[in-house]
Amino acid sequence: MVRDELRQLLEDVKNNKVDVGDALNRLKTLPYEDLGFALVDHHRALRKGFPEVIFCQGKTAGQVAQIFKKLCCGRRSILGTRATREVFEAVREIYPDAVYHELARTIVVYRGEPPAKKGKILVMSAGTADMPVAEEAAVTAEVMGNEVKKAYDVGVAGIHRLLDKLDLIRWADVIIVVAGMEGALASVVGGLADQPVIAVPTSVGYGASFNGLSALLCMLNSCASGVGVVNIDNGFGAAALANAITQMIARANT
Amino acid sequence: MVRDELRQLLEDVKNNKVDVGDALNRLKTLPYEDLGFALVDHHRALRKGFPEVIFCQGKTAGQVAQIFKKLCCGRRSILGTRATREVFEAVREIYPDAVYHELARTIVVYRGEPPAKKGKILVMSAGTADMPVAEEAAVTAEVMGNEVKKAYDVGVAGIHRLLDKLDLIRWADVIIVVAGMEGALASVVGGLADQPVIAVPTSVGYGASFNGLSALLCMLNSCASGVGVVNIDNGFGAAALANAITQMIARANT
Amino acid sequence: MVRDELRQLLEDVKNNKVDVGDALNRLKTLPYEDLGFALVDHHRALRKGFPEVIFCQGKTAGQVAQIFKKLCCGRRSILGTRATREVFEAVREIYPDAVYHELARTIVVYRGEPPAKKGKILVMSAGTADMPVAEEAAVTAEVMGNEVKKAYDVGVAGIHRLLDKLDLIRWADVIIVVAGMEGALASVVGGLADQPVIAVPTSVGYGASFNGLSALLCMLNSCASGVGVVNIDNGFGAAALANAITQMIARANT
Amino acid sequence: MVRDELRQLLEDVKNNKVDVGDALNRLKTLPYEDLGFALVDHHRALRKGFPEVIFCQGKTAGQVAQIFKKLCCGRRSILGTRATREVFEAVREIYPDAVYHELARTIVVYRGEPPAKKGKILVMSAGTADMPVAEEAAVTAEVMGNEVKKAYDVGVAGIHRLLDKLDLIRWADVIIVVAGMEGALASVVGGLADQPVIAVPTSVGYGASFNGLSALLCMLNSCASGVGVVNIDNGFGAAALANAITQMIARANT
Amino acid sequence: MVRDELRQLLEDVKNNKVDVGDALNRLKTLPYEDLGFALVDHHRALRKGFPEVIFCQGKTAGQVAQIFKKLCCGRRSILGTRATREVFEAVREIYPDAVYHELARTIVVYRGEPPAKKGKILVMSAGTADMPVAEEAAVTAEVMGNEVKKAYDVGVAGIHRLLDKLDLIRWADVIIVVAGMEGALASVVGGLADQPVIAVPTSVGYGASFNGLSALLCMLNSCASGVGVVNIDNGFGAAALANAITQMIARANT
Amino acid sequence: MVRDELRQLLEDVKNNKVDVGDALNRLKTLPYEDLGFALVDHHRALRKGFPEVIFCQGKTAGQVAQIFKKLCCGRRSILGTRATREVFEAVREIYPDAVYHELARTIVVYRGEPPAKKGKILVMSAGTADMPVAEEAAVTAEVMGNEVKKAYDVGVAGIHRLLDKLDLIRWADVIIVVAGMEGALASVVGGLADQPVIAVPTSVGYGASFNGLSALLCMLNSCASGVGVVNIDNGFGAAALANAITQMIARANT
Amino acid sequence: MVRDELRQLLEDVKNNKVDVGDALNRLKTLPYEDLGFALVDHHRALRKGFPEVIFCQGKTAGQVAQIFKKLCCGRRSILGTRATREVFEAVREIYPDAVYHELARTIVVYRGEPPAKKGKILVMSAGTADMPVAEEAAVTAEVMGNEVKKAYDVGVAGIHRLLDKLDLIRWADVIIVVAGMEGALASVVGGLADQPVIAVPTSVGYGASFNGLSALLCMLNSCASGVGVVNIDNGFGAAALANAITQMIARANT
Amino acid sequence: MVRDELRQLLEDVKNNKVDVGDALNRLKTLPYEDLGFALVDHHRALRKGFPEVIFCQGKTAGQVAQIFKKLCCGRRSILGTRATREVFEAVREIYPDAVYHELARTIVVYRGEPPAKKGKILVMSAGTADMPVAEEAAVTAEVMGNEVKKAYDVGVAGIHRLLDKLDLIRWADVIIVVAGMEGALASVVGGLADQPVIAVPTSVGYGASFNGLSALLCMLNSCASGVGVVNIDNGFGAAALANAITQMIARANT
Repeated sequence: MVRDELRQLLEDVKNNKVDVGDALNRLKTLPYEDLGFALVDHHRALRKGFPEVIFCQGKTAGQVAQIFKKLCCGRRSILGTRATREVFEAVREIYPDAVYHELARTIVVYRGEPPAKKGKILVMSAGTADMPVAEEAAVTAEVMGNEVKKAYDVGVAGIHRLLDKLDLIRWADVIIVVAGMEGALASVVGGLADQPVIAVPTSVGYGASFNGLSALLCMLNSCASGVGVVNIDNGFGAAALANAITQMIARANT
Repeated sequence: MVRDELRQLLEDVKNNKVDVGDALNRLKTLPYEDLGFALVDHHRALRKGFPEVIFCQGKTAGQVAQIFKKLCCGRRSILGTRATREVFEAVREIYPDAVYHELARTIVVYRGEPPAKKGKILVMSAGTADMPVAEEAAVTAEVMGNEVKKAYDVGVAGIHRLLDKLDLIRWADVIIVVAGMEGALASVVGGLADQPVIAVPTSVGYGASFNGLSALLCMLNSCASGVGVVNIDNGFGAAALANAITQMIARANT
Repeated sequence: MVRDELRQLLEDVKNNKVDVGDALNRLKTLPYEDLGFALVDHHRALRKGFPEVIFCQGKTAGQVAQIFKKLCCGRRSILGTRATREVFEAVREIYPDAVYHELARTIVVYRGEPPAKKGKILVMSAGTADMPVAEEAAVTAEVMGNEVKKAYDVGVAGIHRLLDKLDLIRWADVIIVVAGMEGALASVVGGLADQPVIAVPTSVGYGASFNGLSALLCMLNSCASGVGVVNIDNGFGAAALANAITQMIARANT
Repeated sequence: MVRDELRQLLEDVKNNKVDVGDALNRLKTLPYEDLGFALVDHHRALRKGFPEVIFCQGKTAGQVAQIFKKLCCGRRSILGTRATREVFEAVREIYPDAVYHELARTIVVYRGEPPAKKGKILVMSAGTADMPVAEEAAVTAEVMGNEVKKAYDVGVAGIHRLLDKLDLIRWADVIIVVAGMEGALASVVGGLADQPVIAVPTSVGYGASFNGLSALLCMLNSCASGVGVVNIDNGFGAAALANAITQMIARANT
Repeated sequence: MVRDELRQLLEDVKNNKVDVGDALNRLKTLPYEDLGFALVDHHRALRKGFPEVIFCQGKTAGQVAQIFKKLCCGRRSILGTRATREVFEAVREIYPDAVYHELARTIVVYRGEPPAKKGKILVMSAGTADMPVAEEAAVTAEVMGNEVKKAYDVGVAGIHRLLDKLDLIRWADVIIVVAGMEGALASVVGGLADQPVIAVPTSVGYGASFNGLSALLCMLNSCASGVGVVNIDNGFGAAALANAITQMIARANT
Repeated sequence: MVRDELRQLLEDVKNNKVDVGDALNRLKTLPYEDLGFALVDHHRALRKGFPEVIFCQGKTAGQVAQIFKKLCCGRRSILGTRATREVFEAVREIYPDAVYHELARTIVVYRGEPPAKKGKILVMSAGTADMPVAEEAAVTAEVMGNEVKKAYDVGVAGIHRLLDKLDLIRWADVIIVVAGMEGALASVVGGLADQPVIAVPTSVGYGASFNGLSALLCMLNSCASGVGVVNIDNGFGAAALANAITQMIARANT
Repeated sequence: MVRDELRQLLEDVKNNKVDVGDALNRLKTLPYEDLGFALVDHHRALRKGFPEVIFCQGKTAGQVAQIFKKLCCGRRSILGTRATREVFEAVREIYPDAVYHELARTIVVYRGEPPAKKGKILVMSAGTADMPVAEEAAVTAEVMGNEVKKAYDVGVAGIHRLLDKLDLIRWADVIIVVAGMEGALASVVGGLADQPVIAVPTSVGYGASFNGLSALLCMLNSCASGVGVVNIDNGFGAAALANAITQMIARANT
Repeated sequence: MVRDELRQLLEDVKNNKVDVGDALNRLKTLPYEDLGFALVDHHRALRKGFPEVIFCQGKTAGQVAQIFKKLCCGRRSILGTRATREVFEAVREIYPDAVYHELARTIVVYRGEPPAKKGKILVMSAGTADMPVAEEAAVTAEVMGNEVKKAYDVGVAGIHRLLDKLDLIRWADVIIVVAGMEGALASVVGGLADQPVIAVPTSVGYGASFNGLSALLCMLNSCASGVGVVNIDNGFGAAALANAITQMIARANT
């Protein structure tokens, strides 16, 4: 495609349809804009329903509201993560239809038509304290156009609660496992499932959990194969990776 | 299916086709063998061409050879990772057709028909010293039934070498990025691609690389989304996760 | 036992006393509910007087009060750990007879008959700053049905204070040692006692104590044998382990 | 008892049966020898069949042999841990009946009558590579006078293998769980059992296992209660703690 | 020079122009004041326009104001780093013409003639959250007498944004790269540029960024050569090093 | 320049001097080869006398020799770092005039005319054990075309030895400070000099030096400004950065 | 002495001056109270003017005041460290003559006669931010009965400021060196002095100082001999060690 | 004194007894050689019997032998630490009367008259594996001119063994405590003694001892005051500090 555009441009120069100066200007931007990998940036978002994303933590309510305002384009939803209710109130003054997912600490301004469901993502979490991160993943995965189911509080200390979810595990295309403390859930799920498992360590715990280091190391050393790990508390990142996978599945389907 | 088998068993008991004692023995194994999640263990391997895997490091050549011998079943390939040439020689006495991938430090005994190609996996590496890990990933992905391409020595210090691989990046269903030292390649590839990226930190480096910690942290903190991380030097694990993804894609195709 | 139940079920199917559909439903739940390890969950608590436990830290007073309310069953005591006085006030509105152990930061709603004393647990602590953790252990051990004695402020820098407690050491079935800073008390007590010693590192200290890492490493490296370690500041966990031990002793007694 | 001895000594001084100088000498040793806690050192070993223990690692075969020779007293068994076969050969020249437990890397010179079985200890391990540590624990527990059963290779990635061991879990008085990599087995067993669980992290793994740190942190953060942790690879220490527990149980039995 | 002064002093003593006592006093201060390396302290500042610098963090507004007051000498500018607006208000009462760079959290009291431009310094940053550190570097570099240009928000996840800045990269004498999270920007810029690159890791990030450790290690392990690293968040230090370089260039020019 | 080439190409297409297909092929490579930042890769090396560099550690003598052979181009010198004598012997069979700097563990094959001296680099080291790293820096700096002086064994525990080198410090354009253990030399030199200082922590030391971590942290926290740090033991990297600086100075001179 | 008391007691028993029961009671306390090492606890304080010490941090003003009240004995001074002004106000209500050393965050209630000066202690600090810790050391050393001089802000980045203090260094019996950031001052002073040097790392710094870890490691790796290190920010501990030394010197003097 | 020399020199110049050029040369060396702190370097060694010291580790036998040869001056003893027997053999060829302390891994070439005993140093160690470090300290302290006594294998797990050494503790001027694993001995001794205690952590241990980190942190956090810490395994450093203390005591005595 890019190659064809280039050929056309050269033919146009040859046939005097395009002036050398104009051609020069167009070629100057080639290195990144016309060769495809930057275009992706804009086009793929629209095509996939991938939202604009704002990491709200560390910004004032006013700053976040300004960014939301600037992003308003009408065709893409906007997602704000790590947002307090105060931040949400500021955003709602701009978008009265903005939605606040309290537990997920997430703001969504829904725009465009709901995207077709790309895939089935199961979000599991070990304990109730892991729920904010799990919900961040769930909301993100939904906004990106996936069907999401949840299995919370299925930590390995009560293995029967987990075994009760075998049907859900079989249902999913991708499984996101959110766990703090010792993070053992990822290994057990990784052993039960043959789908890709995305493990999210959380900072839940105290003492020798060292703010999530314990769960992180545990997940990286998982004795089950098929497990990929994202940063501590990074529910958004897990959903983005899960979405990258379901998107490939969706393409295969079409 | 499992449910149907259970029903049949009960019907058979009822109709005296099966003795209570026999039924009891079969039911005793239910908790893990017939209810589906264990069956997977055996069935899925055959179905997917997933090989038997032996982690050879820390075992003597004799021990590895014995394990290879015991696994011989005729229908599944066998994969030995982290194997020295000495280990290979011992295995070759048992399987004269065993193949040694020197750089990948990997032994394969190919069995069964070559599996249909499930998906397209691109393995990229930053430096030449990362190649053993990259090759372990590549060989594993191939044995598991994927089409594999490679782009080695495309570290970010010479960004043009990487940009030259845009076609390969677009070709892939899943991208495995192998990098030591500062591990920055994962972020850059994660920014160029919208496919799932699996990052493998390596222990290549010295001093403040702290045996791969530097690359590991770098990849976990990737500013690009859609990146999942596996353990340091875990080429096998990256391929297993990539295969879990292509398998989902292959299912969608059928 | 489980085997007998299974046999009976099959006989009942054979003899048409039980319908195949009903049998199927009962078998479906086998993997975890009837095979004993889940039942334990419910039964053992009642049998042992093991309380319901709520980790209050990180929850609002309102949230904790709601959980207390939901747990109300009349037969089991409820224990809330890491609770502020504010949390207690919220709980007291629901259970006017709730008790607050200020130093232990612990709420107890006593229910059922006091359990028979299972065993003798000695809680020792090195310094006054370790007392909250020591008290959490002591209150927990008592609520679980143990006789508890205390020997506080017996740090090794004044070894004579510790030697003065030899009688108490000989009295105990299990000894819990709570210490921050260098955590050396566990080793000295481990050398004096031949009973099991449970070491609890605390985050008491500053600088190179690194929030309890110093005491944790010290205790894990104890040159005395017979010492097991729990997480930093985990008074509850130490008591739970001590209780698991006295329970085995109590069973032997009966 | 000690009090009585003291009283007798004073009476003897008073009645001129003992000379002041002699009394003085006896009293001088009081602080640790006659007051009971040092005597324990000698007496309890004989009483309990607790063996002499030699940590062989870092010593030459000749040095270990010399220590074995010096310890020969005829009534206590001698246990050498972390011993190579070469060390064993040197010991066997002194004690021709010495036994070498190869996998456990342990030498035992059995002496005295076999002690009565104090308790039932189950040793579980996650992977085959964890077996040396598990065997060290098993041999130690046996030499100390316990009935030992083993359940190896029951890692959480194949949870059905573990669930198959429920009978063994119910059998035990104390459970030792040996696991490297992510060490998740301790949490799962801790959730299934209500007996005390002693967790032994191992240095099995690579990369982000950081020589056992991963498993250590995982076990310290176990979401299951009733779990105590010992040092990395410390099979001996786990057995010593388990033995301290079964000993209390045995006392209760008599 | 110093040698000449010494010779002159000795000649003066010899010729009785200078008294032995006076000479003695002058020589007493020799070790550090007259031999050149201390003079530098005072002289070089004036010569180079190097400002007085106050690290405001951890000091009260009043304390900072007092220090500013004391430093007032009329010929050197004064720079306050890590200053809140409240601190600035206190300083402005003393110097009504003090300037506050809000984003850079920096106060400048400009004095003396603006120094001739020594060199061209480019400050690049990866994300918007890195801007305060980048601005601290930029303001410092300017106050020290350099021409400064900026290229912010050019993180490697969108490599085309960076490639768009090639002209700026070629313009600079020295490049300061400010990045948090995985800090990969330093390696990519180090590969594009042949000028000295000064990398500033920032504490921007969460979880496994461990307050900037991730970016720090990444930068120290840069696979590109020609990169020097300063402390986390040390924008001032990067500018000071950049200025030390441009100063050498300026000397060569004259 | 690049712009001119582009214009010429387009003119040639327009005037039918160049075929559209040929033009297309040339343009395809534009993104990195013709736009300047890749050309630099080849051109700047020749222009500056920058050598080809091979990191020999972890490669066999044979592998290194092969790489040396492949790099032979006649115009650029070749530098091999971290090379044992055995590696050198293998290289000498290919290049009989190869030179081995034993202490620096460095091989040089000198080619082309000696480059004009770009600048004056002083290499200082704290102790004799730091000399291999210091020599690696010195040899590298010389091969890159700098005048190099050395001041070894001037650690801060004997501050007079350092003060004796003030003349050398004043002589230099850039100072490389190599130090292990506590690495304090960088701060003291940073305080004495107003030139850029490049600090190289070494792994010299034991115990709490943690393989160079101690010196690394010390240097990053230097209270003197104008200090940039490279990786532990990275003598080559320090020289490359120093050379990037002297090169800018040399350009200013011309 | 103790021996003599014992002999006397026995003689008294023999001669019926003391009853066996009374003697028994006295002997029971022997292990720690009469044998000398506990007596020291009480006696040495009075003899040496060693104060009672209260670590105020983490206690409320009311709690501290209560402890001060309880310690009131009239003959020993009382020292409170890490005390805020608020704490001081509470103490002053009990002891109107209590003195607050603001910078040192230290309260002293002076009692008894001023002790004779035991020795000469020099307290040096690197930067102004280290002064609170340095002052804590200075006040403690004085209250314990030492002559104290101070040399603050003599960090190694301006080595001439330090060399100016050579007379003070020669004056001291013991030198306390307080430094944060890179902590290099301890090494330089250790090289200049042949007296014992006590190094106190402080948490002053940011980023890679990791709350004092940087200075701590630096000081432990000091290339100068004769340097002992105490915990981060432990000014009190440094003074206590210095006092232990001057006390031995004072004994030698008498 | 220095002042007087200076005055004399100036007077000599004035009176033409010294030529200006000569005076200039002498003054040039003033900064460090004549002002006293460097002289110390040479003079104090002779005065105190302080030996020349060579750290042999990491040097070949031949290199060490050469250094010993070069140091031969007839009046000072020479001490080689961390020396293997092979190194010793090489040294003995040069100094046939060289002595090898096998356990201490230390070579001494005794020269000059034995120094008068400065003080009494007690070296204590926790376990037999700590003896090499303890012996290094003991030999060093003796060569430096101190009376040394030893109390080995008095670890806190058998506290009575330690209490048996109270007489030795009272005897000492300074106590060196050497301990690995949890390093608790330093705290207990620090509580029993009022003399200065120098704690030496050792790398003895495994797993969570992290090569001595455990003992190091333990000692730095000692709850007993009067404890200073040196680097892991640094027996020499402990002796040098102890000697700095006894030297001050010896001066007070004279």
